[in-house]
Amino acid sequence: MKQLAVLGSTGSIGQQTLDVVRALPHQFRVVGLAAGKNIDLLAEQINEFKPEFVGYSPVNNEDEKTPARLTDIEYEFLPLEDIACHPQVDTVVIATSGKAGLSPTLAAVRAGKNIALANKESLVMAGEIITSEAELNGAQIFPIDSEHSAIWQCLVGEKQKAVQLILTASGGPFRNYSLARLKEVTVEQALKHPSWRMGKKVTIDSATLMNKGLEVIEAHWLFNMPFDSIRMLIHPQSIIHSMVEFIDGSVKAQLSYPDMRLPIQYALSYPDRLPNPQLPRVDWSSINSLTFEPPDLDAFPCLRLAAEAGKKGGTYPAVLCAADEVAVELFLSQRISFVDIAGFIEQTLAQHQATAHPTIEEILAADAWAREKILNLVNGDN
Amino acid sequence: MKQLAVLGSTGSIGQQTLDVVRALPHQFRVVGLAAGKNIDLLAEQINEFKPEFVGYSPVNNEDEKTPARLTDIEYEFLPLEDIACHPQVDTVVIATSGKAGLSPTLAAVRAGKNIALANKESLVMAGEIITSEAELNGAQIFPIDSEHSAIWQCLVGEKQKAVQLILTASGGPFRNYSLARLKEVTVEQALKHPSWRMGKKVTIDSATLMNKGLEVIEAHWLFNMPFDSIRMLIHPQSIIHSMVEFIDGSVKAQLSYPDMRLPIQYALSYPDRLPNPQLPRVDWSSINSLTFEPPDLDAFPCLRLAAEAGKKGGTYPAVLCAADEVAVELFLSQRISFVDIAGFIEQTLAQHQATAHPTIEEILAADAWAREKILNLVNGDN
Repeated sequence: MKQLAVLGSTGSIGQQTLDVVRALPHQFRVVGLAAGKNIDLLAEQINEFKPEFVGYSPVNNEDEKTPARLTDIEYEFLPLEDIACHPQVDTVVIATSGKAGLSPTLAAVRAGKNIALANKESLVMAGEIITSEAELNGAQIFPIDSEHSAIWQCLVGEKQKAVQLILTASGGPFRNYSLARLKEVTVEQALKHPSWRMGKKVTIDSATLMNKGLEVIEAHWLFNMPFDSIRMLIHPQSIIHSMVEFIDGSVKAQLSYPDMRLPIQYALSYPDRLPNPQLPRVDWSSINSLTFEPPDLDAFPCLRLAAEAGKKGGTYPAVLCAADEVAVELFLSQRISFVDIAGFIEQTLAQHQATAHPTIEEILAADAWAREKILNLVNGDN
Repeated sequence: MKQLAVLGSTGSIGQQTLDVVRALPHQFRVVGLAAGKNIDLLAEQINEFKPEFVGYSPVNNEDEKTPARLTDIEYEFLPLEDIACHPQVDTVVIATSGKAGLSPTLAAVRAGKNIALANKESLVMAGEIITSEAELNGAQIFPIDSEHSAIWQCLVGEKQKAVQLILTASGGPFRNYSLARLKEVTVEQALKHPSWRMGKKVTIDSATLMNKGLEVIEAHWLFNMPFDSIRMLIHPQSIIHSMVEFIDGSVKAQLSYPDMRLPIQYALSYPDRLPNPQLPRVDWSSINSLTFEPPDLDAFPCLRLAAEAGKKGGTYPAVLCAADEVAVELFLSQRISFVDIAGFIEQTLAQHQATAHPTIEEILAADAWAREKILNLVNGDN
């Protein structure tokens, strides 16, 4: 029985991870739970899964440190980093969103854990450090993102490296929108993703295609692939989750009904596959056509910004991530428009003085700089 | 360097196998060549590849035993069975068409060889014997058919058996034809396959979809899958060559530009993949859509006949194969119509008294019976 710690258990990926555990109670045991929002749900999860230790890391500084709702519960409270490297934990699920995932990911990597990684930011911000520390400490990073899971599944058992990764993207709710039409987009429209059920941040990132841009940077680190060998393909049906081309021209693709519980389960069960009859299947009697189109780089500049930041490396990807996190929040609170997201990120990147091969401290400093800079830009202070 | 024997070297698969060897001269050496038709081409191939031994097995009894064109050449002439189990041979490519492939396949299996198998009939006729002898003697059967190669590639590295195989079919030149329209089909039309370059027999089998029916039986034996877990899907673009569904609902597909040299090369290079820049690649900038539709079992009864024969087992598949071989010849010589192919095969199967778990002798007796029976049926003698 694998012992799991689920960091970010009250978020979308965290909740779906617990769904997987509920369906496979003889395979997985939750020994650690941690969240930073939605205290009521965390308390419910603690009652249901009875973990050995719990983490509570408030997302906003204003939140109380150990809220009353949790002090009633007799559990050992640990920092997320301590849970991530706890000897009782076999696999750490990092479902924490944003840069809050970086520190526990590093702790898990340094402890040589198996890491089921849903957090994009840690690899995007600190891919060089995380992958080299993982190699040094024998940690394995199993991607939870459907695209990277697809690539990973296609690479299983292959002796040769891939020559090309083809990341598919649904195109989001605004596929085929002109730039003019994108300017009128509302928060409500942006939160309606055509195929995936996800958290708010990643849903907006899917609408701007920044999500895909971040995935390109992640894929670069996860699979040690040069940026020029990673391409994107818009595939609105979200059935093919990504593809891999090999040196002989053979291409392998992984397909499924779009449901995050499948890649989550695979990251937990690997190298085995386990039954999950509760998940919908690809129904070939209803699929007449899978379509593909190139991404519109003019309407969705985030793709270009991410690729550029990824190629330049250093602290650029951290600035990209931080600026995006702030820009998405500003869009959600209706302070900037949808197209402003990319605009302000681009201005922030343009003003950054990057550090090559940065330390974690330098990455966090670039993150802090970017957050302040984009706010200043939005407020009209240069 | 792998030492290859290519049986059926002058046919379509045989010639394409030699193309692969030409492109990878440091990986493969042809030590044996054998054919039964096209003596001039065989002589050319002997001059080019300078094998250690040669087989000549005339397809028609009227052909001379060792034609003058070959007696000039100083090579050791061996029966196909002796080449298939020759100690110098690492991998035997069985590209012989029809039941002529059965005996060398058995010889190779019994000698524990690696077998790159393009011949459908041997597994269809004697799947039970061949797979059990392969297991007993440590022989490995590597499929060359694009569909089975796709399934094999999707299974590489997977610990769990598949729960479903999805064999794709282009649908052939007469996809969406009504039964009435099929009655008017000419030999010339039937020989024009929309996506694959193949021999005449398999091209006609692709037009009747018997080819797909035989592949279902092959897949049953190659991957030890129950018939109810093998489904067919018409996919006219021939880009997805087949798919595999796993217990967790994940589906893997193998895709490539339709060119037989890729699955041939994979069967020779496995577990490695080797470069082959001469082959065209899947071009995602020109693929807008991959489409899927269910097969029309009423217009293409061969699919149903093959599935029934496969499920019933015993000598039924041998009768199916033999009757089909004769029926295709009769169609090619314009003695029966396109729709008569299925009609006469069905009548032949209906009159067969099957033997369960047959020996090779019983299989060959059923084959001979079926050939005579279908001729009698066509000639109007019951």
